[in-house]
Amino acid sequence: MFKVYGDTRSGNCYKVKLALEILGRPYEWCFVDTLEGESRSRGFLAMNPNGRIPLLEIEPGVYLPESNAILWYLAEGSQYVPDEPLARARALQWMFFEQYSHEPYIATVRYWIHMLGQEEEHGAEIERRRGPGYAALDVMEGELSVREFFAGAFSVADIALYAYTHVAHEGGFDLDNYPAIRSWIQRIEAIPGYVPLA
Amino acid sequence: MFKVYGDTRSGNCYKVKLALEILGRPYEWCFVDTLEGESRSRGFLAMNPNGRIPLLEIEPGVYLPESNAILWYLAEGSQYVPDEPLARARALQWMFFEQYSHEPYIATVRYWIHMLGQEEEHGAEIERRRGPGYAALDVMEGELSVREFFAGAFSVADIALYAYTHVAHEGGFDLDNYPAIRSWIQRIEAIPGYVPLA
Repeated sequence: MFKVYGDTRSGNCYKVKLALEILGRPYEWCFVDTLEGESRSRGFLAMNPNGRIPLLEIEPGVYLPESNAILWYLAEGSQYVPDEPLARARALQWMFFEQYSHEPYIATVRYWIHMLGQEEEHGAEIERRRGPGYAALDVMEGELSVREFFAGAFSVADIALYAYTHVAHEGGFDLDNYPAIRSWIQRIEAIPGYVPLA
Repeated sequence: MFKVYGDTRSGNCYKVKLALEILGRPYEWCFVDTLEGESRSRGFLAMNPNGRIPLLEIEPGVYLPESNAILWYLAEGSQYVPDEPLARARALQWMFFEQYSHEPYIATVRYWIHMLGQEEEHGAEIERRRGPGYAALDVMEGELSVREFFAGAFSVADIALYAYTHVAHEGGFDLDNYPAIRSWIQRIEAIPGYVPLA
């Protein structure tokens, strides 16, 4: 049985939980409290030298980090990783977009405001990240205006982008002007096996 | 024939060139000068709404952005994307590591210093990124101390990480204390089809 090391309040960790639930795969969750520095402990660094969660234990002593690599590993061979080469590339395209153009803005601002309650301390940096965060939402809105899911059918790319987009308001991002994103969020929440962020 | 829109001085674009050369696939290069704002022109945004290079034109009007998604698309089915599920996951793990934990520090600092010549203007931000950049190199050094390439055999993950690591010194990162990384750089430069960064 898979073991997942993570914090259920983290969107990156939630991706893994959501994928496992949708896939119907059993797993054990080992809570790692990053706010208490547990992902930087000597024990954790022995499992993942990069000191980040989530971390999937595939079998005793075999660890896989990086949320989106974990999604691909868990779902490849299922309907949630496309078979057709261009659709596969699209799924990866949006997962790399998520980590580079979306997460550092939308997730990080949510972390400061919602998780740490430090909106004032990080005020200048939050303001700096507002523009790129909305730019990422603009790109998503454009794509979701012409298709239902990022790689054609529902896939791991949607799980990756849903995780922090549906709680973007917790970082002060307003989705009122993003009707296509709001419809897509509803479509994902109707997928069999869907579970909410803890 | 593939068309690549990019700037050969950019590591993200160079990844695509290096993969195409190693794979022996013919391509046409369309130079996009980001320093002149060409990736933000109306014409370019119609091809890639995220306004970034590189961009692969697979067939007329079919565009794939995100350097690491392009690498996977080009190389899947070749020896440079592993077949075995865990090795595939490792390749993706290191490619996501590259975009999240490596590129924003090592590539961005090189961009400010080497491409823009603005070491002073960006001095505070360069100092802030020095620590995370070296932390990424530390993680790579640890891994390369126990294996020759990131996913076992040479793969797209090595291409992704090589692109900015081998020019890290252009951003003021000193590789003297990273012997395993320096040996790995030499191994990559001996791969048939290797071409240097322009």
